[in-house]
Amino acid sequence: MCRWAAYRGAPVFIEELVSSPAHSLVAQSHCATMARTTTNADGFGIAWYGDRPDPGRYRDILPAWADCNLMSLARQIRSGLFLAHVRAATHGSTRRDNCHPFVVGNWSFMHNGQIDGFEHLRRRMESELSDDLFRYRTGTTDSELLFLLALQFGLNDKPLEAMAKAAGFVEDLSNDMLGYALLRFTAAFSDGKTLFAVRYATDAKAPTLYAAPVCGGNGHCLVSEPLNDEADTWVEIPDGSTVILNERGMDVALFEPAVNWAARMRKAG
Amino acid sequence: MCRWAAYRGAPVFIEELVSSPAHSLVAQSHCATMARTTTNADGFGIAWYGDRPDPGRYRDILPAWADCNLMSLARQIRSGLFLAHVRAATHGSTRRDNCHPFVVGNWSFMHNGQIDGFEHLRRRMESELSDDLFRYRTGTTDSELLFLLALQFGLNDKPLEAMAKAAGFVEDLSNDMLGYALLRFTAAFSDGKTLFAVRYATDAKAPTLYAAPVCGGNGHCLVSEPLNDEADTWVEIPDGSTVILNERGMDVALFEPAVNWAARMRKAG
Amino acid sequence: MCRWAAYRGAPVFIEELVSSPAHSLVAQSHCATMARTTTNADGFGIAWYGDRPDPGRYRDILPAWADCNLMSLARQIRSGLFLAHVRAATHGSTRRDNCHPFVVGNWSFMHNGQIDGFEHLRRRMESELSDDLFRYRTGTTDSELLFLLALQFGLNDKPLEAMAKAAGFVEDLSNDMLGYALLRFTAAFSDGKTLFAVRYATDAKAPTLYAAPVCGGNGHCLVSEPLNDEADTWVEIPDGSTVILNERGMDVALFEPAVNWAARMRKAG
Amino acid sequence: MCRWAAYRGAPVFIEELVSSPAHSLVAQSHCATMARTTTNADGFGIAWYGDRPDPGRYRDILPAWADCNLMSLARQIRSGLFLAHVRAATHGSTRRDNCHPFVVGNWSFMHNGQIDGFEHLRRRMESELSDDLFRYRTGTTDSELLFLLALQFGLNDKPLEAMAKAAGFVEDLSNDMLGYALLRFTAAFSDGKTLFAVRYATDAKAPTLYAAPVCGGNGHCLVSEPLNDEADTWVEIPDGSTVILNERGMDVALFEPAVNWAARMRKAG
Repeated sequence: MCRWAAYRGAPVFIEELVSSPAHSLVAQSHCATMARTTTNADGFGIAWYGDRPDPGRYRDILPAWADCNLMSLARQIRSGLFLAHVRAATHGSTRRDNCHPFVVGNWSFMHNGQIDGFEHLRRRMESELSDDLFRYRTGTTDSELLFLLALQFGLNDKPLEAMAKAAGFVEDLSNDMLGYALLRFTAAFSDGKTLFAVRYATDAKAPTLYAAPVCGGNGHCLVSEPLNDEADTWVEIPDGSTVILNERGMDVALFEPAVNWAARMRKAG
Repeated sequence: MCRWAAYRGAPVFIEELVSSPAHSLVAQSHCATMARTTTNADGFGIAWYGDRPDPGRYRDILPAWADCNLMSLARQIRSGLFLAHVRAATHGSTRRDNCHPFVVGNWSFMHNGQIDGFEHLRRRMESELSDDLFRYRTGTTDSELLFLLALQFGLNDKPLEAMAKAAGFVEDLSNDMLGYALLRFTAAFSDGKTLFAVRYATDAKAPTLYAAPVCGGNGHCLVSEPLNDEADTWVEIPDGSTVILNERGMDVALFEPAVNWAARMRKAG
Repeated sequence: MCRWAAYRGAPVFIEELVSSPAHSLVAQSHCATMARTTTNADGFGIAWYGDRPDPGRYRDILPAWADCNLMSLARQIRSGLFLAHVRAATHGSTRRDNCHPFVVGNWSFMHNGQIDGFEHLRRRMESELSDDLFRYRTGTTDSELLFLLALQFGLNDKPLEAMAKAAGFVEDLSNDMLGYALLRFTAAFSDGKTLFAVRYATDAKAPTLYAAPVCGGNGHCLVSEPLNDEADTWVEIPDGSTVILNERGMDVALFEPAVNWAARMRKAG
Repeated sequence: MCRWAAYRGAPVFIEELVSSPAHSLVAQSHCATMARTTTNADGFGIAWYGDRPDPGRYRDILPAWADCNLMSLARQIRSGLFLAHVRAATHGSTRRDNCHPFVVGNWSFMHNGQIDGFEHLRRRMESELSDDLFRYRTGTTDSELLFLLALQFGLNDKPLEAMAKAAGFVEDLSNDMLGYALLRFTAAFSDGKTLFAVRYATDAKAPTLYAAPVCGGNGHCLVSEPLNDEADTWVEIPDGSTVILNERGMDVALFEPAVNWAARMRKAG
């Protein structure tokens, strides 16, 4: 399982959540205490929003704790909206193109989870993409493909509906091709203004998702696992939820994959 | 343009052709004298046949001249059949998965050339692959895809016919989708027993291909550009040729892409 | 020879000088026109001053043109004082620790040049460093060592005098140990407020140094070779010069290595 | 703590001990069961003896399990004497020059352990090296320096005495400079003919060392931790021991650092 942290609020140095505290994301990547897999050494990445509509991104294939570039960038860059991810490979080899966050235009996306039987579903998922979006398919992970499908299904216009369609499409396709569907999915994504997160699984084992006010109440942080020992400040977001962080604060809503839509679409097609 | 060298004959240390001489492949990669592009700094790779049917492979994204691992391997490994490649990126980012030689089972393949308009042809080329072969599509280059198409079209059974079908398929597809075809193609490939090379272009500008007896006449070397100053020992292989190196020595035959086949196949399909 | 560019002025996106224009530093690194060596593919680095006294730094061993992280960072980061370098290795292997700029505290340093016979001088140069400074000796280049010697000789208090002492020390040591001195040296360095550059050689072959107002006159750029075709806007800085860029603009003064000081010191010692 | 495995016997594919079995060195590096640190993700290396007196070497900074080059090399290369190492960084950053095994001429060396207060001892240790040996000091680890000191103290002529002198020198130097000595040391080294290993610590906490006949009794393997579940075939080598593997089989002798020698030498000097 991968780990991630995302922040929205008053601009802070990225290191405050990524590399500074004793239980930061990078510290977690080295010596995990709550996760099933012991380390996240298969690469890392950060995407941050600054003076441009599109985010900056830095990712590499070293273990995060061994990368002095990451330490320097996290120490220097101040941002009011950023995503950070450390990877334990499930699908896709260890290379930069397979490191999260993925970025297309002003959108960024990162993910912890899995699609069972992805190797059988991959081509059908890819064939759903327009030629324009297919150009962004440079890696081999299921995560990148989920993101591109959400873009295909309207992420720009209706972000949560598009993500529900992407999850529903995969679920339908799995049932169709494999006879069952097993999708576990905890993702964060942003257009540079709003920070979204989704926690969902077809079984009862969705990867965890926590939220907390941070930086003296000037921002919110979403994480796959709590970042420090003050466990009581972190609220666990329930399975089947969407989190929306914007200038009005944090909102939580139900998340349900658009299964029927996908089925209908295929019939109509 | 990339550069490459391939050898078949009595076992020699790989360094004799790759890294030792003043005008070895690695020296060429650093300071080219005959090629249009000045350096080949976007990665390198070697594939060699040893005690197993499938070849060993080492590739990385550094400039070849900066990689001390390559120097040590080339100095230690002795082989009677090997391929070596230095890359100047045209399609596909600089990452290991995009470095030649490509390997599937006991086959290896490397390439210097280009397919005009590849970004428009890529998906149709990929959709020609069986699910089994598609699993080997880990990079984004046109070269890897040409190799997989040749495997799809029967490389195991009739290697030269399969390569002619792959070239013909791309030519037909280009004419079909773009209204013209521009393919330049100088490739080497092997099953571990025979070493093949092809020089071909739809225009008069096929990348060069040279052959020479080397190592005291105990082997033959095929190269994209001559490896040393004794230019008179290198024979230029004409455009539209196939070279076949096996235990009976070197043979040169015509190469013609199987254009008709590809057209017929599509009509029948 | 390496290449570099340094900027001081109103904050600009780093890409404006490093990666955007047709003749930017990264474009130069790929296809050089004026330099003796044809490419600078042995790594790169940037150091920039932002919201902290110490600079941020990003460096890696890929060719600069192949690094998508560099492109993204240069596009996102805005700075009023930065140094950028592309490397062609002379001393020291290709690894991050040998990539410029070097950074200690709030100081940054980068260099194009060479010390003849450095392999014989290295240990005596290193032994001049205090234990505190020796901890920063993580690479094997002559450039890093020149920087650390300048710090040892008072860079914090009298930057130009310290750099003159460092150059003089090397010259004296060369004469002492080798019977001659050959030092060629074009360097840029900064404390985050003032940007300094030095052009000097013991023979008449100091690497070039140019200066120009850039970004609509809101800043100055110093470069090893002019960055674009408008060659007439670039002024060549003569051999034996120091350039000082601060809030009062650009100043040029003589640079002379403090040879006598070094000789006296050794006699006294 | 690092982990390592070394083999001497009839030539075998390196993968048999390094990457194939369920509990191979690479599998251990990913998910440790007996060691104190949980992963060894800070690089790896192999050195093997083949057709030349000097060994081949391959090392890189990725986690071993993520490196497809290593998998291919270990599958192809057959050797009768090899060393393999996976690293968890203690001293020295994550870069190739700091990855074991270290190689000078026909000698190879790898190490698991630590020298307490090394940052204070480093310069005095380095100053003991001749100019010739100092040229091989390209990294910053204590391990590389122990190896170079052993070469300085006569590894070519009397290997075990030289290693005892190196350990004794460090112990004396620690007592001298720090007021105490804490050295923990389990190393393997070879000249291409004999494979040596040493287990030693100044306290009772020497890193473990095990030996077993492997490959149907045709060779012996020395490891920092047993490689598979048949724990009863592995014999623990006691603290304060030397293991010698040559054509006559395996021999175990006492190891004692040459403390007196070092003390005498300094007095005489």
